[in-house]
Amino acid sequence: MTKLRVGYPAKLPAELLNLFPAEAELIPVPKSPEADLPLDVWIAPPSAPLGQQAWPHLKGVKVALSLMAGTDWLTELVGPSVTVTNAQGAHSISTAEWTVAAILATLKYLPFYRDMQHTGDWSQRSQVSKQYASIHNDQTPQFPPILQEELTGKNVLIVGYGDIAKTIEKFLAPYDCHITRVARSARTSPEVHSVAELDALLPNAEIVILILPLTSETHGLIGATQIALMQQGALLVNAARGPIVQTDALVAALNAGHIRAAVDVTDPEPLPEGHPLWKCPNLLITPHVAGSTPQFSPRATRIAAEQVQRLVKGEPLINVVQRGQEN
Amino acid sequence: MTKLRVGYPAKLPAELLNLFPAEAELIPVPKSPEADLPLDVWIAPPSAPLGQQAWPHLKGVKVALSLMAGTDWLTELVGPSVTVTNAQGAHSISTAEWTVAAILATLKYLPFYRDMQHTGDWSQRSQVSKQYASIHNDQTPQFPPILQEELTGKNVLIVGYGDIAKTIEKFLAPYDCHITRVARSARTSPEVHSVAELDALLPNAEIVILILPLTSETHGLIGATQIALMQQGALLVNAARGPIVQTDALVAALNAGHIRAAVDVTDPEPLPEGHPLWKCPNLLITPHVAGSTPQFSPRATRIAAEQVQRLVKGEPLINVVQRGQEN
Repeated sequence: MTKLRVGYPAKLPAELLNLFPAEAELIPVPKSPEADLPLDVWIAPPSAPLGQQAWPHLKGVKVALSLMAGTDWLTELVGPSVTVTNAQGAHSISTAEWTVAAILATLKYLPFYRDMQHTGDWSQRSQVSKQYASIHNDQTPQFPPILQEELTGKNVLIVGYGDIAKTIEKFLAPYDCHITRVARSARTSPEVHSVAELDALLPNAEIVILILPLTSETHGLIGATQIALMQQGALLVNAARGPIVQTDALVAALNAGHIRAAVDVTDPEPLPEGHPLWKCPNLLITPHVAGSTPQFSPRATRIAAEQVQRLVKGEPLINVVQRGQEN
Repeated sequence: MTKLRVGYPAKLPAELLNLFPAEAELIPVPKSPEADLPLDVWIAPPSAPLGQQAWPHLKGVKVALSLMAGTDWLTELVGPSVTVTNAQGAHSISTAEWTVAAILATLKYLPFYRDMQHTGDWSQRSQVSKQYASIHNDQTPQFPPILQEELTGKNVLIVGYGDIAKTIEKFLAPYDCHITRVARSARTSPEVHSVAELDALLPNAEIVILILPLTSETHGLIGATQIALMQQGALLVNAARGPIVQTDALVAALNAGHIRAAVDVTDPEPLPEGHPLWKCPNLLITPHVAGSTPQFSPRATRIAAEQVQRLVKGEPLINVVQRGQEN
């Protein structure tokens, strides 16, 4: 019996290879293979440039196993004849934690306080009171001065309702937020609204969290119209993919002091030096790092190994994002 | 019948005065009273300098109602003959939220990414992998590069177990942390260890949260010995009072790269310009802001108004921190 030929990123820690069934022949795929590599299954590396470099040398791949939640670049790379699965669940904890961190950091003005720490001037904290009054357009006298905001009790709109979104909701539960959910199609228990209702739901949200896949339908979903519907001082959090938000509209709204934002993803990405987004006020940028925790490799590799086990046993794959034409 | 004379900070928003019973005579206390003010009850302002400025002009005060959780400066100011109560519960949400924000910000390297945002150079993110390896003394090859850490599953030691600590624990619940509790005296359900066991518990903690009152017993509780017992790369969070940590020991441990810290309070406070703490690595400083949210005044004033109601009705006060000698 011919063994199933499974290519894996050569840099994968060796101890994780023990997760795979003995029936599979495990073949390390280097960053730039020197010769063509015949494979049945390709465990794609966790970054688009690495994957794009290796792909031309891989021959016969019928199944591509992504270690990521988002497979946009991978399906495009391998084309419609290859079955693609994602690592649903592997990034839920890390990305949901990033989301709560980004929200709390904004509400607690941590970027400002970080800058203050560099100056070594404690008295600058009074500027936060003015920032609060400005972004909320609230000139009521403050007693005592407002130097923080609270997450507790906020109206939160979650756009996208997969595994990461559910984990975000779990992490938000103790804050007694009023949570509204939007996804491609409406559902009940819990109530999820259809994306067709998005514009109607935006005005009530103090925090809008984007955690949905990038598809032709979600590309540019949040544009000038949607941002204009958001409350003065509302917080837009992008934990999904950069192109879901129209960058020009985001830059304009931030520079106008209309909304706040926290983004782990941008369009373009990497964000080039000199891009106007870098200098926008009321914005926290992290460079697409939410999923990159020490727990990533073990979790995602375990999911890939379970898929290989299914193929070896002739069982159907789970988390299928694209069904290949040959299957 | 003589009305109970209740002094309140003159800047308290007027609409909050409706919370008080009509039987009380409400007397605004300006920042610097021009003449002596006879009072039965003093609602102290929420900052030590303001309170210290007003106090010499207040005559006959038998009860001082603090709007804060910590009453260290107030009991010292009014002396042992005045009954002092605190506003237990008024700061639990805000301070617990700050604590989770500070922990997540550190584990997600947000201070570094904030600095990166100013430089506008996305590629600097690779430095986080090196910072991670350095602070955890872990030179294992990283695949993919580690750019974040997770809170989920961490060993957390909470020192102090009042209302704020319980709220912190509530906010941490979804992260499945292993929580150990320490307070002045041991208790059960939930299990709380005695502070005598602190040194034995420190080595197991990845995160140590200080949220206990400043007293003669807790002054300097965390010194060089305690910090030396902490794990390489552990995170010390001070949401309590600056002098609970010995500043010299903290500065030395941070500069040696032994631990990380996030502090809302310092000793001295305000932290003066040029103090070595400002420049320590792996440290997040916020300038004693955790409680200063828009929700502060309504919550704390409601508690004070309920105390005045008790005095009017002849009922015993709650949250008594110091029982005055005249009572």
